Amino acid sequence: MSTPPASIAAAADEAAPRSRRGRPGYDRAQVLEIAVRLFNEQGYDATSVSSLAAELGLSKAALYHHFSSKEQILQIALDDALGGLEAVLEDALSGEQPTAARLVSVIQGAVRVLTSRLPQVTLLLRVHGNSEIERAALERRRIFDQRVAKLVAQAQREGELRSDIRPSVATRLMFGMINSLIEWYRPAHTSLTPEELVGDVTRVIFDGLRAR
Amino acid sequence: MSTPPASIAAAADEAAPRSRRGRPGYDRAQVLEIAVRLFNEQGYDATSVSSLAAELGLSKAALYHHFSSKEQILQIALDDALGGLEAVLEDALSGEQPTAARLVSVIQGAVRVLTSRLPQVTLLLRVHGNSEIERAALERRRIFDQRVAKLVAQAQREGELRSDIRPSVATRLMFGMINSLIEWYRPAHTSLTPEELVGDVTRVIFDGLRAR
Repeated sequence: MSTPPASIAAAADEAAPRSRRGRPGYDRAQVLEIAVRLFNEQGYDATSVSSLAAELGLSKAALYHHFSSKEQILQIALDDALGGLEAVLEDALSGEQPTAARLVSVIQGAVRVLTSRLPQVTLLLRVHGNSEIERAALERRRIFDQRVAKLVAQAQREGELRSDIRPSVATRLMFGMINSLIEWYRPAHTSLTPEELVGDVTRVIFDGLRAR
Repeated sequence: MSTPPASIAAAADEAAPRSRRGRPGYDRAQVLEIAVRLFNEQGYDATSVSSLAAELGLSKAALYHHFSSKEQILQIALDDALGGLEAVLEDALSGEQPTAARLVSVIQGAVRVLTSRLPQVTLLLRVHGNSEIERAALERRRIFDQRVAKLVAQAQREGELRSDIRPSVATRLMFGMINSLIEWYRPAHTSLTPEELVGDVTRVIFDGLRAR
């Protein structure tokens, strides 16, 4: 369903209680952010529209001025995560660069997407295929993984990557490491910047931890 | 709570319907296995003793002859996973070997624990600290991680590991890769053996994917 025109959303904001629980009114982006946080904390299935409205201090009607359904919020958040990752892959595949450089771009771009869209990617990685939207997201992840695995296979054929590990396994191990960021990387609670993390992940994946 | 004497458990098995849903009676290990599978599929909190009894085709009373509570089953499964990982670390730290070799032992042993106890480790990695048992498990994981990070720091000081990555970050990236196995490694559905996986993970962590 499409976004309501700004004037309607604004009118909805006016109508909604602005300071219940001492909070100001929310715009669409803020509702989305809080909804995704709740989904990650409580589980998507376990989060009702009522509990989301309660958390926001909005009536369900006011919430429905921002989004047509809980599913729409899920869809937008998953699109955000998947769209980010897919754009990274498209970027890496376009232009003239060696295969190994494309792979470096994919890995570094993926780390940047994860660190900048942590809540959305967290939601994506916890999706289990319980609905059509979730199954479509899993299918997009599968296609993404396959395309990266093809890149790994090509870099192996070109002699850039070691060929004693299956491309599919190398891809899963790489993304196992990258995706683990959602479990432990908390930008607000560490001096480790996203760009340091990009460098660390790249070094471990390509050169390993051994001193040379 | 302690295990009931074998004779009581056997008597309980006799009393329970043996062939409801066409299944035979279960021993304690089988009940544990099915319970852990259900916890992983449905979530621990969402799995009731009633639904577990129904899945087994047992009465709740018969189930309580095997285990005193749902919490006891969780505790046993988490102990199994954590005990396996801790034993790997103790083994690696005992005896006379260089620090880097100890770290290789920890990584390879951890992959073996994960592949041989996938359901229990899956349960462990999804624990969020919602109860005393879960918080105790998280604390044991934290201590394990800290001890591994100390090993990484020591190997860096000895010049065996690159020192341009913080020990805590290197440890998280390593275990991010290793722990991802629970998401994708299915021994029954792949020709990749656990020992091949041990080799692949070791090579990537220490030497990276780049061809040399």
